[in-house]
Amino acid sequence: MSKTIKVGIIGAGRIGRVHSESITKYVKGAEIKAISDVRVTEELEIWAKAMGILNVYQDYQQILQDPEIDAVLVCSSTNTHAQISIEAAQAGKHVFCEKPVDANPEKIRQVLTAVEKAKVKFQVGFNRRFDHNFKAIRDRVVAGDIGEPHIIRVTSRDPEAPPVEYVKVSGGLFFDMTIHDFDMIRYLSGSEVDEVYAIGAVLVDPEIGKAGDIDTAVITLKLKNGAIGIIENSRRAVYGYDQRAEAFGSKGAVKTANDTESTAVYFSASGVVSEKPKYFFLERYMQSFASEVSCFIDAIINDKPTLVNGNDGLQPVLIALAAKKSLDEGRPVKLSEVA
Amino acid sequence: MSKTIKVGIIGAGRIGRVHSESITKYVKGAEIKAISDVRVTEELEIWAKAMGILNVYQDYQQILQDPEIDAVLVCSSTNTHAQISIEAAQAGKHVFCEKPVDANPEKIRQVLTAVEKAKVKFQVGFNRRFDHNFKAIRDRVVAGDIGEPHIIRVTSRDPEAPPVEYVKVSGGLFFDMTIHDFDMIRYLSGSEVDEVYAIGAVLVDPEIGKAGDIDTAVITLKLKNGAIGIIENSRRAVYGYDQRAEAFGSKGAVKTANDTESTAVYFSASGVVSEKPKYFFLERYMQSFASEVSCFIDAIINDKPTLVNGNDGLQPVLIALAAKKSLDEGRPVKLSEVA
Amino acid sequence: MSKTIKVGIIGAGRIGRVHSESITKYVKGAEIKAISDVRVTEELEIWAKAMGILNVYQDYQQILQDPEIDAVLVCSSTNTHAQISIEAAQAGKHVFCEKPVDANPEKIRQVLTAVEKAKVKFQVGFNRRFDHNFKAIRDRVVAGDIGEPHIIRVTSRDPEAPPVEYVKVSGGLFFDMTIHDFDMIRYLSGSEVDEVYAIGAVLVDPEIGKAGDIDTAVITLKLKNGAIGIIENSRRAVYGYDQRAEAFGSKGAVKTANDTESTAVYFSASGVVSEKPKYFFLERYMQSFASEVSCFIDAIINDKPTLVNGNDGLQPVLIALAAKKSLDEGRPVKLSEVA
Amino acid sequence: MSKTIKVGIIGAGRIGRVHSESITKYVKGAEIKAISDVRVTEELEIWAKAMGILNVYQDYQQILQDPEIDAVLVCSSTNTHAQISIEAAQAGKHVFCEKPVDANPEKIRQVLTAVEKAKVKFQVGFNRRFDHNFKAIRDRVVAGDIGEPHIIRVTSRDPEAPPVEYVKVSGGLFFDMTIHDFDMIRYLSGSEVDEVYAIGAVLVDPEIGKAGDIDTAVITLKLKNGAIGIIENSRRAVYGYDQRAEAFGSKGAVKTANDTESTAVYFSASGVVSEKPKYFFLERYMQSFASEVSCFIDAIINDKPTLVNGNDGLQPVLIALAAKKSLDEGRPVKLSEVA
Repeated sequence: MSKTIKVGIIGAGRIGRVHSESITKYVKGAEIKAISDVRVTEELEIWAKAMGILNVYQDYQQILQDPEIDAVLVCSSTNTHAQISIEAAQAGKHVFCEKPVDANPEKIRQVLTAVEKAKVKFQVGFNRRFDHNFKAIRDRVVAGDIGEPHIIRVTSRDPEAPPVEYVKVSGGLFFDMTIHDFDMIRYLSGSEVDEVYAIGAVLVDPEIGKAGDIDTAVITLKLKNGAIGIIENSRRAVYGYDQRAEAFGSKGAVKTANDTESTAVYFSASGVVSEKPKYFFLERYMQSFASEVSCFIDAIINDKPTLVNGNDGLQPVLIALAAKKSLDEGRPVKLSEVA
Repeated sequence: MSKTIKVGIIGAGRIGRVHSESITKYVKGAEIKAISDVRVTEELEIWAKAMGILNVYQDYQQILQDPEIDAVLVCSSTNTHAQISIEAAQAGKHVFCEKPVDANPEKIRQVLTAVEKAKVKFQVGFNRRFDHNFKAIRDRVVAGDIGEPHIIRVTSRDPEAPPVEYVKVSGGLFFDMTIHDFDMIRYLSGSEVDEVYAIGAVLVDPEIGKAGDIDTAVITLKLKNGAIGIIENSRRAVYGYDQRAEAFGSKGAVKTANDTESTAVYFSASGVVSEKPKYFFLERYMQSFASEVSCFIDAIINDKPTLVNGNDGLQPVLIALAAKKSLDEGRPVKLSEVA
Repeated sequence: MSKTIKVGIIGAGRIGRVHSESITKYVKGAEIKAISDVRVTEELEIWAKAMGILNVYQDYQQILQDPEIDAVLVCSSTNTHAQISIEAAQAGKHVFCEKPVDANPEKIRQVLTAVEKAKVKFQVGFNRRFDHNFKAIRDRVVAGDIGEPHIIRVTSRDPEAPPVEYVKVSGGLFFDMTIHDFDMIRYLSGSEVDEVYAIGAVLVDPEIGKAGDIDTAVITLKLKNGAIGIIENSRRAVYGYDQRAEAFGSKGAVKTANDTESTAVYFSASGVVSEKPKYFFLERYMQSFASEVSCFIDAIINDKPTLVNGNDGLQPVLIALAAKKSLDEGRPVKLSEVA
Repeated sequence: MSKTIKVGIIGAGRIGRVHSESITKYVKGAEIKAISDVRVTEELEIWAKAMGILNVYQDYQQILQDPEIDAVLVCSSTNTHAQISIEAAQAGKHVFCEKPVDANPEKIRQVLTAVEKAKVKFQVGFNRRFDHNFKAIRDRVVAGDIGEPHIIRVTSRDPEAPPVEYVKVSGGLFFDMTIHDFDMIRYLSGSEVDEVYAIGAVLVDPEIGKAGDIDTAVITLKLKNGAIGIIENSRRAVYGYDQRAEAFGSKGAVKTANDTESTAVYFSASGVVSEKPKYFFLERYMQSFASEVSCFIDAIINDKPTLVNGNDGLQPVLIALAAKKSLDEGRPVKLSEVA
């Protein structure tokens, strides 16, 4: 595995920089040759230099046209994911696309077609599949240790609600936040989803309600393998980022707890105190960002399938659409109604 | 509190004997004067003698007509609970009635009317409210430590499925098993339930399905205070009786784990092993059976309200009816539809 | 096992009453016929009546001379344990003697001789052997799960120091408190002790130092089977009664944590809080008091050896003597030096 | 902090490579300019190239003579630490020296004199001070959360014994393994050590005994601040690298558990299984290797004291000498006897 894959990062916002840093530090076999952003500031140039990224472009076409670049990470705003992914595939680049690929299943299907035609690798940024805890559950399920899955539960709570301005353009809770949990239900259960029922509420911040969104949700899912999925969401857990899951089946169960900064437990007259969960996704999931890109690079170098493929990009969007319809109509909705 | 309350036990099946033993051992201020059962066997008489219970009757009327007896525990078969409770109240006895009071809300209301008219104490056997773990959650909620409740979750899994013959006469999962969890959602949230959506499946034993019942269920509940409830049920968790809950709100969360026989953890080359949950309800909930009767006796002696009143007997039955209707019709059902 | 053993309690102080209550509630096959105390107060008579104990004597000889009484529990002051035990054995009573039997090994040996001659059962009140947690460690050791024991550690900290007046007559930390831990090292390791080295300090309360005692100690023990024992003592752990142990060996390790009132964990913005250990020995060890007496009664009824025999009463006293000598002389001391 | 410190690594064995990798990946502000080893193999040159280290020397003098190099990490064999550190200081290089500096206190003092004279920074490689768990205990102690320290305990067990050939040249358990724990007692307690008593045994591997060493040890320490320290060592814990500590004091206690690969817990009919500790020091302490060097680099750039100074290098060696003398003579030994 002596080849080094040259990578271009499209979009230098938060997630683009997270990937840049984790590739630089942790991903063997990859080298960032260029980064692009619609707004090239002096700050961006200084940051890129410090990261050792030599080329900073305003126009991502410069990345697509560079014959030395093997692969791109599409980290631009969500509404541009599909178009850029298609163009990148047509330019012969392997494509790692941040989630969600698009809110419109039709556009996702166009991306999948383009990718297939171009015979390039395609991976979607569902990084939590690479988290050590969720992976430990998945490994038990795949090994048959819990037998047939019966109930899969995902608890996913943010430490604080995003600004309302963000909420307004986020696509709504199901597309912005729950999309990861929809993926997790599929990943842990190994099954597609048949039907969705969503309860939503505005309990955290009335402004979120005024913006037409919800901040608290419980979604139950009938899976095609007969199991039942449960997702619990809140935009604000005051004690920190709460990311747990449990898979229960005919032969047992496996569950995970949150990661903490240390294992220290303090005993005093007023109680026994242990650490809060790691604060937010950068703290909790940093290792998974490196792992997912390592997996993508490995798929390219060794011509293997990626571990989060096109269908894995499509299905959560269908589930989110069904959840939204369920919430709006107050009834369970089959995926076939939105497909 | 020098008065001793003389108690009669009606029904000498499993739960009647559990109460007899726990009263004898742990309940101060109570003395069992008589027990009745439709089938008085030699074995029962020997058992009663060993317990120090002097009178064993076939006809519970003998208990109701004994002027020395202050209170009765109705532990007979479910279909007789309402009738016996009414007669006991009319005879001036305080009534502790096992759950469920009846599957028919109308009959429960008749009991409540009789009890009210007779001005006797009435308590329903939702013992889990007296369990140290669930009570610890409730105490945090009442103290305001979690702020406004947002999501209340109850995980309730039996260690093994009952015989199909039992399932056939049990009234179905919601009335036989989930009834406790419906009560727990009300108890932990401090709120009535507005709407119920139930998913059910036969994943444990196909015979249960043939008997017209389910063995796996996930029920979501919209509560009147705006919070959302979740109940997870399975008739068989191979690792033992799984009884946990979690309450999440605006200021925090509180959750409980299962009780175990010891805190021992064993570390070996093949892994780190700790104890399974206590096997079943007798092991897990014995302390709560004594506590609930102590509470009942205390209410009589000190003329205080009981902690599980008539409405607490009625509401879970309404929720169970709504859950059944939801399961049958594949849609969320409001409690007002079944009230 | 239809026979009921009639028991006399000698000494109605705290431990005498603890045994009386636990026998009444939990011990099958035993009935308390009489209790004696050098000071018979009205309060004692009221208490005895409430417990259903019909005879209250000032002179324990009345118990020893009652031919109906099969067994006595010697719960009087420590300096009378040996003499009363000898007289009880000579009167043909089975003897359960509180710990320590005596501070003088010679007197313990006299008790053992008297007991042997009288062919009565003899058990010493090392109740912690019957605690569910320590027993779980012992069971793993006996089963061979940790292989050859290498290191056995006992952490034993009281929630608060006793009054200095008590300290003055207590016999010192090693005889009053550590005596249980010396027993525990023998019990968990299955080995006798060869050599002891003790470090002591006055860190909790200078008054304890003025009284000639210590309040903090670490004792290391070379065991005859080659393993090493460690005991940690403090007279005051502000977070509660800290009672843990760990056994480490060639095939693994087993350790226990403290018992708590509930498993509840509370998550808030200021941290994650779980319950403190149960407050003190009555809360933590109540079950063990009943179990040890049940074991004693069972030994009588079924003519089996007791589980805490005469040598188990003698050895901890020898270890305590060696520990005291080690502390005084600042060097390791062999048990053979004090035997 | 724009300056980049140029670093030379002296010694390309295991620890030299660990530092090289962690500096390359994680340490900001440092750049490795050269590495030296007495044996320059082709494999080493390939490895160095892959790490981006341009210069590979056989003679460490080439590093000391390079005026561009600001600092060196002395990772050579222990018997050369002192001499190389002195020469490096004389050459004006800041010195990070692996532990132990030397087994001879006199030689350590010569190093400290040389370092002081040259006015260069000096840090000793006690990496565990930078471990997140031990640091969490230290932070509680420093914050006064446990009040006055009374008992400090360190449990330190390797997952498997080293080869006997290694044992023979290791300097013995106290210098090779316990040296870290001696440091930890000082670090956690904030106190110097006054007296040491050591018990040692050969329980893991008789070959270690034949080589004149021990494989199991319990060391108790009287600290100058009045507290008592306990160290437990074993060369083989079959369940993995066991690295825990506990600090107990007048206001409370704080303890840590081992790190694990995930938080997953698996429940099955045969038990409840969680993960073993991370396997060995590379897995457990990798983060601490980066943190200690970051601290060293920060001390250079910002002219601050290092966090593990010369005295921190000297004291554990004195304690080890006292422990060895204690073991040999079977009595407690004061540090003043070996100083």
